[in-house]
Amino acid sequence: MSAIPQAFVRKTAKLSEEVTRPFPSSRKVYVTGSRAGVRVPMREVTLTPTRTNEGAEENPPIYVYDTSGPYTDPEARIDLLAGLHDLRGAWIQERGDTERLKGPSSAFGRERQSDPRLAHLRFQHIRTPRRAKPGRNVTQMHYARQGIITPEMEFVAIRENMRLDELHRDPRYTKLLRQHRGQSFGASLPEMITAEFVRDEVARGRAIIPANINHPELEPMIIGRNFRVKVNTNIGNSAVTSSIEEEVEKMVWSARWGGDTLMDLSTGKNIHETREWILRNAPVPIGTVPIYQALEKVDGQPEELTWEMFRDTLIEQAEQGVDYFTIHAGVLLRYVPLTADRVTGIVSRGGSILAKWCLAHHRENFLYTHFGEICEIMKAYDVSFSLGDGLRPGSIADANDAAQFAELETLGELTRQAWEQDVQVMIEGPGHVPLQMIEENVTKELKDCCEAPFYTLGPLITDIAPAYDHITSGIGAANIGWYGTAMLCYVTPKEHLGLPNKEDVRDGIVTYKIAAHGADLAKGLPGAQIRDNALSKARFEFRWEDQFNLSLDPERAREFHDQTMPHESHKVAHFCSMCGPHFCSMKITQDVRDFARAHQLGDLQMAIEEGMKEKADEFRQEGAHIYKAV
Amino acid sequence: MSAIPQAFVRKTAKLSEEVTRPFPSSRKVYVTGSRAGVRVPMREVTLTPTRTNEGAEENPPIYVYDTSGPYTDPEARIDLLAGLHDLRGAWIQERGDTERLKGPSSAFGRERQSDPRLAHLRFQHIRTPRRAKPGRNVTQMHYARQGIITPEMEFVAIRENMRLDELHRDPRYTKLLRQHRGQSFGASLPEMITAEFVRDEVARGRAIIPANINHPELEPMIIGRNFRVKVNTNIGNSAVTSSIEEEVEKMVWSARWGGDTLMDLSTGKNIHETREWILRNAPVPIGTVPIYQALEKVDGQPEELTWEMFRDTLIEQAEQGVDYFTIHAGVLLRYVPLTADRVTGIVSRGGSILAKWCLAHHRENFLYTHFGEICEIMKAYDVSFSLGDGLRPGSIADANDAAQFAELETLGELTRQAWEQDVQVMIEGPGHVPLQMIEENVTKELKDCCEAPFYTLGPLITDIAPAYDHITSGIGAANIGWYGTAMLCYVTPKEHLGLPNKEDVRDGIVTYKIAAHGADLAKGLPGAQIRDNALSKARFEFRWEDQFNLSLDPERAREFHDQTMPHESHKVAHFCSMCGPHFCSMKITQDVRDFARAHQLGDLQMAIEEGMKEKADEFRQEGAHIYKAV
Repeated sequence: MSAIPQAFVRKTAKLSEEVTRPFPSSRKVYVTGSRAGVRVPMREVTLTPTRTNEGAEENPPIYVYDTSGPYTDPEARIDLLAGLHDLRGAWIQERGDTERLKGPSSAFGRERQSDPRLAHLRFQHIRTPRRAKPGRNVTQMHYARQGIITPEMEFVAIRENMRLDELHRDPRYTKLLRQHRGQSFGASLPEMITAEFVRDEVARGRAIIPANINHPELEPMIIGRNFRVKVNTNIGNSAVTSSIEEEVEKMVWSARWGGDTLMDLSTGKNIHETREWILRNAPVPIGTVPIYQALEKVDGQPEELTWEMFRDTLIEQAEQGVDYFTIHAGVLLRYVPLTADRVTGIVSRGGSILAKWCLAHHRENFLYTHFGEICEIMKAYDVSFSLGDGLRPGSIADANDAAQFAELETLGELTRQAWEQDVQVMIEGPGHVPLQMIEENVTKELKDCCEAPFYTLGPLITDIAPAYDHITSGIGAANIGWYGTAMLCYVTPKEHLGLPNKEDVRDGIVTYKIAAHGADLAKGLPGAQIRDNALSKARFEFRWEDQFNLSLDPERAREFHDQTMPHESHKVAHFCSMCGPHFCSMKITQDVRDFARAHQLGDLQMAIEEGMKEKADEFRQEGAHIYKAV
Repeated sequence: MSAIPQAFVRKTAKLSEEVTRPFPSSRKVYVTGSRAGVRVPMREVTLTPTRTNEGAEENPPIYVYDTSGPYTDPEARIDLLAGLHDLRGAWIQERGDTERLKGPSSAFGRERQSDPRLAHLRFQHIRTPRRAKPGRNVTQMHYARQGIITPEMEFVAIRENMRLDELHRDPRYTKLLRQHRGQSFGASLPEMITAEFVRDEVARGRAIIPANINHPELEPMIIGRNFRVKVNTNIGNSAVTSSIEEEVEKMVWSARWGGDTLMDLSTGKNIHETREWILRNAPVPIGTVPIYQALEKVDGQPEELTWEMFRDTLIEQAEQGVDYFTIHAGVLLRYVPLTADRVTGIVSRGGSILAKWCLAHHRENFLYTHFGEICEIMKAYDVSFSLGDGLRPGSIADANDAAQFAELETLGELTRQAWEQDVQVMIEGPGHVPLQMIEENVTKELKDCCEAPFYTLGPLITDIAPAYDHITSGIGAANIGWYGTAMLCYVTPKEHLGLPNKEDVRDGIVTYKIAAHGADLAKGLPGAQIRDNALSKARFEFRWEDQFNLSLDPERAREFHDQTMPHESHKVAHFCSMCGPHFCSMKITQDVRDFARAHQLGDLQMAIEEGMKEKADEFRQEGAHIYKAV
């Protein structure tokens, strides 16, 4: 039996071709920090010049936040069987507060690793796990509170800043940097992100850097409302069969389109091995819901769950490198009956599992009663909490109800408890909420949970559009992001109906990138509008290629354009298919502008004084050339 | 030469099959009014019963606002060559204030009608046009101000009310009618819509009923912020070849998916004949931008436009039955230079044509200087104004600028002028606006234009997502609808890139139905939540068919479900593909609920007092049966 699954090798080849293709006119650039290894990736989009009557006018490159990892870098050697480069390894090593274990310290981890029947599924280069030395705390929050700026914090600062300070000094960007004033709902977005600002936000708990010491491959990123709004995506093989290869491919695909983090929600067989493959190849933080795997271990019987086996699962996953855990510790026994009169009861899988456990045992949720012990595990690996909203509303009717808000208050209590141990926390949010009730969710979360980052699913603003729930939820997501949510959990068109395929994942992510960017613009994130400005300038000047290349999905933009205007010559045409060559408002506007400029018209009064009549005749003559067919 | 184009006949057959298929488990019902002919169509969706331990529990039918016209009524005989039934003919006749002309009174209309070379394109059953008798005013606003409730107003009242008064008296609907409080931004949505309320809103100019006396086929509808938010769609053959048949098919397709009104933006050849085919078969109000056709008549040379030929075009179209005209009368000469420093200048086609005319002639916009005469025409046929925003922003950078808001103020002045002649008015709005600047648009429009209905394109909340602009704009649309926009002009995924095909039109409309419904929920429109509640109840009870059938796009919902779970048995399965049979949160919740109900637990304190331990054991025993595979 081969140790390397053949199917996987085949898939790897395919992945390189389909998923690693760099975006058009883009190259990966790295901005270096103060120390070796802090090389922050960005995507540089090169633009074509503007043709004017005075000749070509350069358009400077635009820098785009890049989540795709080394996969879109033609210089990088990608080998899924070996895993990604150990970017953070030296930083973690240097801190001297961790030790390398001889092997997994979870019983289940040891069992899977030593089972010869799993050899063909197993990642070949498993490192032995790292753990904090006894008595040490290795969370980014702990360092931040000690006043230490870690390389991760510096990396994040450079990444968020996106060269904005340099662009401000470059006159080519002066006009492109124009931006409307935002409405920030109390967020405080600095003109420039510094490493010290990052440290301070992490220390206050207002932002987290999910970065398990056993996931050194990740490119650090930050989640907090004073930074760019982030997007989380989900993958998972569920009960329907889905292979390791597919899951890894989905992960790379998700990062390609802009997923900032990724949750592996697998519930099928071999999830331990699948997770290892994903983690070793993931440039983004990976989250899980450990109760799903715990439930697998007790054959799907929630009442059989125990703290001991759950604890073993946490350690198993923490030692693999999972960066954040959804923990439904706020589903308290006394809240469960509050859901009985709902239209859609408990829709969170984790929430329903724990509700059932509570009722079956008539005991308080063991995640709540053992929360302190969970914190001990989290801080030994720097796993961040994603405190789960097990009682989130599953329909418009159930939005903002007593069960939901009772749990949210408990999540606030747990946040403070985690912070006592310097464990990083974010808070999960709904769900299904009509537009007018979204803001209350953010206001209450910020208050109850002391400004810990909010991480919401949508919310969907209506229940009536299955097959379009990326859109129903994208609307809610843009709004909740604007009000202060730090990360948006994406929803695909298949939500409520089935498992997403690759195109669904792409649709879901791009929709959520729109929502996140819309929120950034609305909050007034410095520099956010530069891409809009550059794209609109390209559009106005009929630089079609630049318009495609600056868009969130250059490939689809080009494809849609080509459906109507397939010839290459059309991509340099000074018209588009909507109006055709004889009838183009943009062309007319250019004439208006040229005219106004040529005659230095500040306003019409001046024009009239200048004797507009004569100039009008002149314009009419010039205009005679405008509508020539191309 | 055959008088009936053969291609058209062939297409008609196809149309019947593809586009007239009734929605599943739905039937067309008609609610009758106080007089003959007031038969208001609605779609009744029949639901399956809920299976409970006590047997089947009926789920009452849900009524859905239906824009599809007779096309989805299997009882209706559809013959595109003959046109739709003359629904409003008798009402118009009875009022006795119109006269039937011998033929078109526009020169162009006469020319087209008498040209033998056009016979093969011409609709065969053209009626001679109607016009107000000298000195009479036939607008709905005029009647409303006289205190007259027209059949159109009664029709609209019944249609908006959607049987809500009866449902409130039917105990089967009690729970389904539960709804959250809205945030209405000053709109005043009554508990029940009466014909008198409709009359009053029309009289005040706060709502319009676009209904040309020469378009008696339409099913009356209302546009105003105290009613359901409406969706407009666009079709148009543009410079790229597109046939009459395709345009008619697109119109029916648009109405099928929920388009409330439709603008024919054609700019190619034979637009006169195309328009006739569309109007004679359109159950929804049809709008145009007459300047497009006027420009065709002067071979695309804006500077050659004259008031006389534009006037002839208005009369030509009014006598065909166009229900609303976009008139860019607010593009004043002195505003044009305000656009010179924009990133994207003037992006409205109409706006740029008029800007060019103004500059070329150094004269004020002839639509502005002749506005009173235009009103005279409008009131003779009851064509409504859609006062165009020729200076709307075409990029985030240009949002809410001096040019845009200067024009809006002028539109307010024109509104008051139109109202002096009892001509109905709505106001077009942007465009591209970031989230935080949307509300200002509505506030300013309501103030400047004395609450005339606002009709906005999107707005797009970012420029960076060509190929997804139905979504970027759908987000803006939901928000602006919530703030008080009365009608949303849809955007398709092809916006900025090419001409939409049928699937693009469907995507665009459904996205906008989501936005409009989201806005209705947010404003607190009485009864709006009933469909959400019914769908969520179906979802929770695993009534898959009902979930599909209640959705905005039942066909796609079913198709997506079937991609993962193709078997018929899965549609009655008590689980879904996301979790599989062993792991279903909805199933668990049902257990929680059954448990809570069985033991009459109002809250946990009571449960504890009752001796929860014993009940927990009992529950555990019951639970042993829950996870059996299906």
